[in-house]
Amino acid sequence: VNLHDIGEFGLIERLKAIVASKDPQVVLGIDEDAAALRMASDRITLFTVDALLEGVHFDLSYFTFYQLGWRAMAANLSDIAAMGGLARWALVSIALPPQLTVESVEELYRGMRNLADRYGVTIVGGDTTGSKSGLAITIALLGEAEEGALKTRSGARQGDVLAVTGALGGSHAGLMVLRHPKQLDRQRYTVAVNRHLMPLPRVEEARWLAKHLDVTAMIDLSDGLASDLGHICRLSGVGAEIDAMRIPFAPGLAEVASALGQNPLDWALTGGEDYELLFTAAKEGFEEGVRKAPLPVTVIGKVVSQERGIQLLDSSGRRTAVSGGGWDHFKRET
Amino acid sequence: VNLHDIGEFGLIERLKAIVASKDPQVVLGIDEDAAALRMASDRITLFTVDALLEGVHFDLSYFTFYQLGWRAMAANLSDIAAMGGLARWALVSIALPPQLTVESVEELYRGMRNLADRYGVTIVGGDTTGSKSGLAITIALLGEAEEGALKTRSGARQGDVLAVTGALGGSHAGLMVLRHPKQLDRQRYTVAVNRHLMPLPRVEEARWLAKHLDVTAMIDLSDGLASDLGHICRLSGVGAEIDAMRIPFAPGLAEVASALGQNPLDWALTGGEDYELLFTAAKEGFEEGVRKAPLPVTVIGKVVSQERGIQLLDSSGRRTAVSGGGWDHFKRET
Repeated sequence: VNLHDIGEFGLIERLKAIVASKDPQVVLGIDEDAAALRMASDRITLFTVDALLEGVHFDLSYFTFYQLGWRAMAANLSDIAAMGGLARWALVSIALPPQLTVESVEELYRGMRNLADRYGVTIVGGDTTGSKSGLAITIALLGEAEEGALKTRSGARQGDVLAVTGALGGSHAGLMVLRHPKQLDRQRYTVAVNRHLMPLPRVEEARWLAKHLDVTAMIDLSDGLASDLGHICRLSGVGAEIDAMRIPFAPGLAEVASALGQNPLDWALTGGEDYELLFTAAKEGFEEGVRKAPLPVTVIGKVVSQERGIQLLDSSGRRTAVSGGGWDHFKRET
Repeated sequence: VNLHDIGEFGLIERLKAIVASKDPQVVLGIDEDAAALRMASDRITLFTVDALLEGVHFDLSYFTFYQLGWRAMAANLSDIAAMGGLARWALVSIALPPQLTVESVEELYRGMRNLADRYGVTIVGGDTTGSKSGLAITIALLGEAEEGALKTRSGARQGDVLAVTGALGGSHAGLMVLRHPKQLDRQRYTVAVNRHLMPLPRVEEARWLAKHLDVTAMIDLSDGLASDLGHICRLSGVGAEIDAMRIPFAPGLAEVASALGQNPLDWALTGGEDYELLFTAAKEGFEEGVRKAPLPVTVIGKVVSQERGIQLLDSSGRRTAVSGGGWDHFKRET
């Protein structure tokens, strides 16, 4: 079915059926100028927005619409998780090129809905518009956190441990597999490819860390380790030392990088979109606490004084400065 | 200054300076993964999102960046106003073509900030990304309303009066002036042109109406009278009769339409983006109440039974069905 056959309001009716839910805190939903929500009164409200643009963030030659919806929702969920909060309500603003089928748009919404459902998030409305260029999906997400549970980028202190969840560089490796189908067999690197196409945000994991460790700063790895660590250091007024040998490489990372003649360490440092958590925590009690963690946590370094900047310690004991790097929309090409 | 000279994070620093504010309810702002807000506990939260895309909603040949920022914020403010609420916090997601200058982006943010300031709205963060096609501005807005003050599209009842604020068709007339610079002199139609470029949302006015009249349903006129009235009728389960002779024509509408050989009534019915309010209210007490209104309110018809649909009563007493019309992103061309 073509979009112009059913029109904007016909499309909205079909999408409503996909996102329908019975959330008692939703007073008014999609049909109104704005969604009306009854929020818990003793919480801090968290509010974030993230856009995913065709040709910039994704390419429809390797993303299915379902995966794309999932991926868009994941990035937003990850932002709320990194603050120590729980996501609750989403608005979806979508710009659709006229040649898209209604069924494709429905698949996109199914992907969003299914990931949202896992974490108790309801899609309560949005905005639908035509696009003269590519497909664009912008999600605004509202969450909440107990005031004491809130985690920021600004609390890291000298002497804290620096740690990550999971493994790094998988999303970038997956993207490279998708972009080089002649050299690399997609079937062989399923884990990396899936990490890129359908990342799972660390929602429960972030809550666990915030509750059981003395987490001083936290951020999700969306731009890449070097860049995201840069945010923590800048806002906390500290430096950091990363032990290169301790960075957990994602499955497939080393192989894919080597097949393309690249350095996997570079990808682990600057490849974004892993949606793992990077955090700092007080040293005291860290070892015992982390032993009970329901997810892999790896200490990759420590927080040092601001003057020392961000340094990478390599296997031969040499220290080199890490210069931000990572994703910058205006400085580098995709 | 070019975007690639200062990079994404350099740009964000400059935009931070423009949107900086001292809102005591903002716990954490732009530097974090999500904004953290302390909302009033006895209010309903209102949540809306709206996108403005180059080539679809606007053309940089006649919009300044400042006007564009203003215009983007106006559309969102209007949505919260139409619900009877007060807007409070905004997130701005922006996709920037690489050739834009930093100064243009700053002007855009100044336009947003200045309109936001008028209504006590703080820009608390957002998302900045490159664009391979045009400029895109998506604003998510959070507001609040006392539970009793909330106005919806679903409460219109048979016998209610149907009214609008201000005058209609001005934005569309202004757009036509901008699009036909050879035939129409922009200087002569300043009011209409300004209505298109820098609309003023009816924020205080909506609050006044909600407080002093027995408003049963309200919506802002963004898609056009026919279409927006269609939403009220569908959701309220009613029909409506519009008296064509009573529709207030905006300054310039009749002249511009006639210069282009078009029917001004069509533009008043289907030209969107006026950001006036369309509402229904109980008949009792309406006349007295509206006499004290701090804004022009015009009764344009009445609410009738659903079976009668939406009808237009013309000067000769003939009734014709109004068929939705108005803005549909997938059915019509701009």
